Amino acid sequence: MSAYKAPLDDIRFALFDVLDAETAFQQMGFSDATRDILDAVLEEGARFCETVLAPLNAVGDQQGCTFDKDSGQVTTPAGFSQAYAQYVEGGWPGLVSPTDFGGQGLPHAAGVPMKEMIDAANLSWGNFPLLSHGATEALLQHGEDWQKQAFLGPLVEGRWTGTMCLTEPHCGTDLGLLKTRAEPQADGSYRITGTKIFITAGEHDMTANIVHLVLARLPDAPAGSKGISLFVVPKVKVDREGNMGEANAVRCGSLEHKMGIHGSATCVMNFDGAEGYLVGQPNKGLMGMFTMMNTARLAVGLQGLGLSDRALQNALRYSRERLQMRALSGAKFPDKAADPIIVHPDVRRMLLTCKALVEGGRVMGYHGALLVDEAHHGADEAARKRADELVGFMTPIVKACLTEWGVECTYNALQCFGGHGYIAEHGMEQLARDARITTLYEGTTGIQALDLLGRKVMQLQGAGLKVMLEMIAGFCEAHADDAALAPFVAELMQKAAQWQQLTLSIGKRAAANPDEVGAAAYDYLMYSGYVALAYWWARSVAAAEASSQPQAFKDDKRETARFYFARILPRTAAHASAIESGLAGLPDLPLE
Amino acid sequence: MSAYKAPLDDIRFALFDVLDAETAFQQMGFSDATRDILDAVLEEGARFCETVLAPLNAVGDQQGCTFDKDSGQVTTPAGFSQAYAQYVEGGWPGLVSPTDFGGQGLPHAAGVPMKEMIDAANLSWGNFPLLSHGATEALLQHGEDWQKQAFLGPLVEGRWTGTMCLTEPHCGTDLGLLKTRAEPQADGSYRITGTKIFITAGEHDMTANIVHLVLARLPDAPAGSKGISLFVVPKVKVDREGNMGEANAVRCGSLEHKMGIHGSATCVMNFDGAEGYLVGQPNKGLMGMFTMMNTARLAVGLQGLGLSDRALQNALRYSRERLQMRALSGAKFPDKAADPIIVHPDVRRMLLTCKALVEGGRVMGYHGALLVDEAHHGADEAARKRADELVGFMTPIVKACLTEWGVECTYNALQCFGGHGYIAEHGMEQLARDARITTLYEGTTGIQALDLLGRKVMQLQGAGLKVMLEMIAGFCEAHADDAALAPFVAELMQKAAQWQQLTLSIGKRAAANPDEVGAAAYDYLMYSGYVALAYWWARSVAAAEASSQPQAFKDDKRETARFYFARILPRTAAHASAIESGLAGLPDLPLE
Repeated sequence: MSAYKAPLDDIRFALFDVLDAETAFQQMGFSDATRDILDAVLEEGARFCETVLAPLNAVGDQQGCTFDKDSGQVTTPAGFSQAYAQYVEGGWPGLVSPTDFGGQGLPHAAGVPMKEMIDAANLSWGNFPLLSHGATEALLQHGEDWQKQAFLGPLVEGRWTGTMCLTEPHCGTDLGLLKTRAEPQADGSYRITGTKIFITAGEHDMTANIVHLVLARLPDAPAGSKGISLFVVPKVKVDREGNMGEANAVRCGSLEHKMGIHGSATCVMNFDGAEGYLVGQPNKGLMGMFTMMNTARLAVGLQGLGLSDRALQNALRYSRERLQMRALSGAKFPDKAADPIIVHPDVRRMLLTCKALVEGGRVMGYHGALLVDEAHHGADEAARKRADELVGFMTPIVKACLTEWGVECTYNALQCFGGHGYIAEHGMEQLARDARITTLYEGTTGIQALDLLGRKVMQLQGAGLKVMLEMIAGFCEAHADDAALAPFVAELMQKAAQWQQLTLSIGKRAAANPDEVGAAAYDYLMYSGYVALAYWWARSVAAAEASSQPQAFKDDKRETARFYFARILPRTAAHASAIESGLAGLPDLPLE
Repeated sequence: MSAYKAPLDDIRFALFDVLDAETAFQQMGFSDATRDILDAVLEEGARFCETVLAPLNAVGDQQGCTFDKDSGQVTTPAGFSQAYAQYVEGGWPGLVSPTDFGGQGLPHAAGVPMKEMIDAANLSWGNFPLLSHGATEALLQHGEDWQKQAFLGPLVEGRWTGTMCLTEPHCGTDLGLLKTRAEPQADGSYRITGTKIFITAGEHDMTANIVHLVLARLPDAPAGSKGISLFVVPKVKVDREGNMGEANAVRCGSLEHKMGIHGSATCVMNFDGAEGYLVGQPNKGLMGMFTMMNTARLAVGLQGLGLSDRALQNALRYSRERLQMRALSGAKFPDKAADPIIVHPDVRRMLLTCKALVEGGRVMGYHGALLVDEAHHGADEAARKRADELVGFMTPIVKACLTEWGVECTYNALQCFGGHGYIAEHGMEQLARDARITTLYEGTTGIQALDLLGRKVMQLQGAGLKVMLEMIAGFCEAHADDAALAPFVAELMQKAAQWQQLTLSIGKRAAANPDEVGAAAYDYLMYSGYVALAYWWARSVAAAEASSQPQAFKDDKRETARFYFARILPRTAAHASAIESGLAGLPDLPLE
């Protein structure tokens, strides 16, 4: 079984030393979000994740969720619902929710380390409370007053959970094709009829009610994505005072058999004239859904990060224990039968790759969450606008890169185990299987790439990229005379210039043929992720130097940054070549 | 469930058009290996793989092998042993084995397409007959006369299967640590005692006997890898006339629970004073085992290839069927609800990546097999020596690259399915799980990299690389004035020069510190694979042009080659940077 220890030192470094989140929180008016409070939250959260959730991870994989066809009920793996009860008791569901509805009102960024730790400890379990946040946000921003009163309290307290019901068998990415119908009733409610698939936590045994946020079409809705409305459909009917009544006509039809996240209930949900209530304006449902999707995308990025970190921790341990062969430069432990495999440079290469992606990715992912706070609570309109532009730009990068790196890190970590990594008992193969979903759900990497290049760069004229490049330029200027940072700064400036040039070059080609956007999107996304990570590594070195961290910690950050710049960042060259080759290098394939 | 259709057109193109194998076989004296005969073998083999093996692939994954603790017996999934009986009846086991022992005496390279098709159709099943070849070769080359008479007939006919028993719980790569003991008996036999793990097909219900080739230590053996001897240990004892007697003291202790290849029996094997017979010289066992390992490594490369091809076939089909979104450049199928996703450039990028790696990899893998034949049957001593040097150099590249690309291709193909790829019923996730073993067994990618750079390049002074570079230079020279090939030839010459320069540069650094070899090994291996593949793609374009293939086929090869050179080959830049950064870019990690 794989072990997990919450990386509190590095979490604190990312949050407080690199991002100076305490200052940011105070400036945004989160007076409770002091370092003392947040430290206590981290300690308590770490204990819960390490002792309650982590031990259930293998159990969830082995048992999976079970479905009773007759009753439509889903039973979660042994221990899952008890762990959820402890989670509710600890007040975790409302950590970053508004105090008006029983939450603790901490900033969004103060909640992400807990999110990372939950996902690292037990991704499948983490998917049950995950979407309550999205449902809460959608109702907060778009719901009628009675809907907020009826649903938000139980969602924030965790007595109920939420879902996002988007996908149908014939449409996932292309929601314009969806067919689920909503018929208006005399009492102002709607009857929802249709089938939704891939519904995470669509049915389970953890709470008394489940709040489905459902996309459906009104009878007179225009075709395509402009005719989609958002509805709230509880599993058990709820009156306007929030009292639960009889069961609604929504039922789980089956559970999917998946490659991984076996403990997570991925449901087919059948709505058979279920009672629902319109959220927001008719035909404007996609907007409400996008509200949910952006934070969900950042959250899925953190799933990739959490799995990577757990995989790395176990690979490090194994590489220190497993004795095999001697170092090429001579025995390092002559008294042992062989050297531990960590002495072999190629094993170090795999471990350092994970370390560089995990620690750098942590800062990048947390920064994304901080931007969400700043977009809402920034000091002034200009600051909020900048943060909003940057978070729009960085969200697809964080989602796609942290999950692609999650696949890579779980691959490398498993590889350190040799054949033993393929055997279930070590738990490494579960991490690899679980990580595999993260580049698919909440929009595949390809969809993130189109969102980044097509929408955030081309349609919005690179507003977010501009903010990012200014941030990099500002950092490089501030450290122009800093000898310790010189090699990083020089490289970073070069890459930033190339980033801008590649963007312009794609823009020019796309003006002639819009398919050039699709041809460049993936490589542009990955290029962007590697340059952004280079920036965060340079910032990490600077922050470590300026901090009161021990010298060994500072050295470790500098050495890992050097590794990143020497061994990972050069991947940008391959991506740049692919981008520049354009559509011309991407021939058609026979359509039939 | 994923479908499989044997790619006979491309197999024929690789074998006959690019490699001109028919001529080569005739020159080597394989007079039966005519195009007509081989075509018939291909057709018949394709039918068997498509209709018998492929439908059992999902069954094997779902049922797995089962183990009866009381009897020590292993039951293979439903249909597996019947399929094996058909395989034996069809004469497939002895396809490339010597006629002296009942084989059909075809060259090794004539057997690899069948190998690829078997692995694509059902990798787990393919692992049962796989190691009979290695056992056959080890006995042929090192066995005593009576051993050949007793064991080779049944192995070649497929009445018995073989195993390779190397790994022990505390040693895999580092066989010098192995502890299994062999005690000489008065009658010339030995008593073998010890535990072996990860034994593929160690126990099963397909044949009456199983022939274990076992590494063990004699009582007076020196420590380390110079004290290892090779033994043949049948499951059922065999006398010198080949008659089966009573059960031997070898027993399966358990089956491993694995990430994939569930239908393959991965056994813990307990030898408890089992009767065995020395094969070859005492303490020279590793040599015999390496004989088996080299062909096994090429064979595992083909496993990666087969899985990649099947994944690509299914992703192509799905991408043509699945309607989602419109092409950015305007609807391509305005009469449909949406365009098939194959119109989106990013989907094409994923499909073309698979196609370039599969079709190029096929030529590279088959060429490796042809070199095995040439090393034994080449026209003269010089030709045999060249082939031997080149196959030694290419074996780790073929093994590691085709399997790493297998992981990448099954990843990309699954990604084309979006969330549906994660669901078991489509069969894509099985291919990804099955592919994951191939970069681990028969030596991890890291071990292949050390074999390539440490042994084949540094110790053997680059003999194989020299042959490869001469081959590339010869091709470039021959096509210097060929306008159709000009862009490929120019790029190829540049990469070949860089290959040589990187090799020299590593050599220089390694003279100062042997750990530089380990620091460069992985990136050198991948760099080598991509340049070798570029050569095979250029050769493929030239071969297509010179062939009587239809114009569409020629265009397809040229376009795929262009894609490869534009989009994949640039990865060499990242690997070259990593190589050049050397040990200095790879800091130590704390050993504890």
